[in-house]
Amino acid sequence: MNKWTEIVKLINESEDIVIMTHTNMDGDAIGSASALCHVLRMLGKRCVILLEDDIPGYLKFMHDHSSKDPFFVFEMPYQPQLAIVVDCGDASRIEKRLDVYQSCAKKIVVDHHVQEEDFADCSVVDPAASATGLLVYELINELGAPINKEIAEDLYIAIMTDTGCFRYSNTTAQCHLVAAELYKYGIEPERLGTLIYDTLPLSQMKLESLIVEWMQMFAGDRAVISYVTQDKLKEIGATYDMTGGCIDVLRKIDSVEVCAFLKEHEDGSFKLSLRSKGTASVLNVAKAVGGGGHVKAAGGTIRLPLSDALALVKEEIEKELKRCENGCFEA
Amino acid sequence: MNKWTEIVKLINESEDIVIMTHTNMDGDAIGSASALCHVLRMLGKRCVILLEDDIPGYLKFMHDHSSKDPFFVFEMPYQPQLAIVVDCGDASRIEKRLDVYQSCAKKIVVDHHVQEEDFADCSVVDPAASATGLLVYELINELGAPINKEIAEDLYIAIMTDTGCFRYSNTTAQCHLVAAELYKYGIEPERLGTLIYDTLPLSQMKLESLIVEWMQMFAGDRAVISYVTQDKLKEIGATYDMTGGCIDVLRKIDSVEVCAFLKEHEDGSFKLSLRSKGTASVLNVAKAVGGGGHVKAAGGTIRLPLSDALALVKEEIEKELKRCENGCFEA
Repeated sequence: MNKWTEIVKLINESEDIVIMTHTNMDGDAIGSASALCHVLRMLGKRCVILLEDDIPGYLKFMHDHSSKDPFFVFEMPYQPQLAIVVDCGDASRIEKRLDVYQSCAKKIVVDHHVQEEDFADCSVVDPAASATGLLVYELINELGAPINKEIAEDLYIAIMTDTGCFRYSNTTAQCHLVAAELYKYGIEPERLGTLIYDTLPLSQMKLESLIVEWMQMFAGDRAVISYVTQDKLKEIGATYDMTGGCIDVLRKIDSVEVCAFLKEHEDGSFKLSLRSKGTASVLNVAKAVGGGGHVKAAGGTIRLPLSDALALVKEEIEKELKRCENGCFEA
Repeated sequence: MNKWTEIVKLINESEDIVIMTHTNMDGDAIGSASALCHVLRMLGKRCVILLEDDIPGYLKFMHDHSSKDPFFVFEMPYQPQLAIVVDCGDASRIEKRLDVYQSCAKKIVVDHHVQEEDFADCSVVDPAASATGLLVYELINELGAPINKEIAEDLYIAIMTDTGCFRYSNTTAQCHLVAAELYKYGIEPERLGTLIYDTLPLSQMKLESLIVEWMQMFAGDRAVISYVTQDKLKEIGATYDMTGGCIDVLRKIDSVEVCAFLKEHEDGSFKLSLRSKGTASVLNVAKAVGGGGHVKAAGGTIRLPLSDALALVKEEIEKELKRCENGCFEA
């Protein structure tokens, strides 16, 4: 008896299975779901991954496992007995699939998020796991199932993406040990890394270049602010969701302690993102403009013309940097 | 008896040691040298790392091991008996230090480059090793020496940087296994990764933004060319050595198969860099303009005004892409 015993029993007893993962999928979601689907099919099960939103562009290459009998579907081709939800700690993130989920006789959750509620018959939830892919790897071993190159690459992508290529603070020795194991199956990390990290749409390259061109350094180069408007997004063919990484571009500047990014909404208001690399609290800055968040990462919405919004945020950041010179992290 | 026996004996018999590594140092060079210096001092040896050029800016933080008794020196404070050269396959890369090297009674080389010539009494050279840091890790274990956090971080940086953060094709399971071992000593990979990969001078950010702003897409977005002039480098405060990564920025564009970058030399000529992500041979392009290299990475020098140089390279790339449509990699 271990934490997997009951889950292995449920899987062994089921023939028709559905896998689900959270909306707004990332590499851990798709990699975990895909690896498990592959394994369950090799064990003779009927299995698909039911989606309610599209796989993001940069992970589309993970879609190509079986053109004859696709892994990823938007409608169930059969009535499953067992639902397995991976990398999803909240039933609201499978919202449009809840009817299918509820229709299954048995339900399993395998996840590393802190769970909002227990919504399964049987769960393995380990918030200490760096990626759900690590838990799926354990499960595959418990099932006594074989691993091939495709499965190994799915698991590798899950671990790589959720740890920022083994660089985020959630990375553990275990991530490296499992990565080393996966090499046995002929994975090609260079190809996977290039596909995921070094393959950008032209419009995104232009966007990242633009925000550097438009950035304003201030407070003696200790702070930076940049922005993008709806008109400019349209002009360069970029979409709003491409703006998510812009604050991280600004964050790289070596002299910068605080960075701010404004992106215009369709209604003309601006979404503000703030980051602190040092002791300054961007939560104080966010609060001053009606927003919120955390000490190191905060934000809000500003309903002012662009020039006023820029001036306001710069003023509040300068105040915070000054305040901070006399002891920090206390509002 | 193993490959390290003779080296361990030489180290055990020596009191005063000098470590050297190649000029134009990278993370593997500095990390390997620094880890070994640390260990040898802990074993009671007198040891410094003799340099002939500066540690590059992005690795300067690796310099701070001992302010009282610095690891890195430009002049020997004593006459060493033993020289250990790490991560250097060619005596010309320790050129200005050859007199000190030759003055040592015994000489060791530990390296993973293909050696031009054997220039030591005793060498461990393993071109299959992903990083010299892996070999130094083996040597430290053979010496029976303790490892602390600083040593572990030096070795981690060596492995991380030479494998492109575990992404280049030279990455092996062994890299991950050693990384996992190094976690035991409390390394902070997130801090190290941020220092090395996400901490850029403002001028470099501006440079990378600029080459995207100035790039010209052609051949139906299958190719891209960009450039930088001496005047512009000066204007944004960037140095010539910062241009090394510009071709990799262009390479990220998803539609691009061939990319080209021109950087102006002081004398007004242009250094051309070429990369192919697909089946086109940039060697053919390079040859056509009097250069050379490999099928996937090539270059040359062009002595033409900028507009003519751009036109020439674009024309040759278009020719190659056309030629390639009827079977590739054959000039």
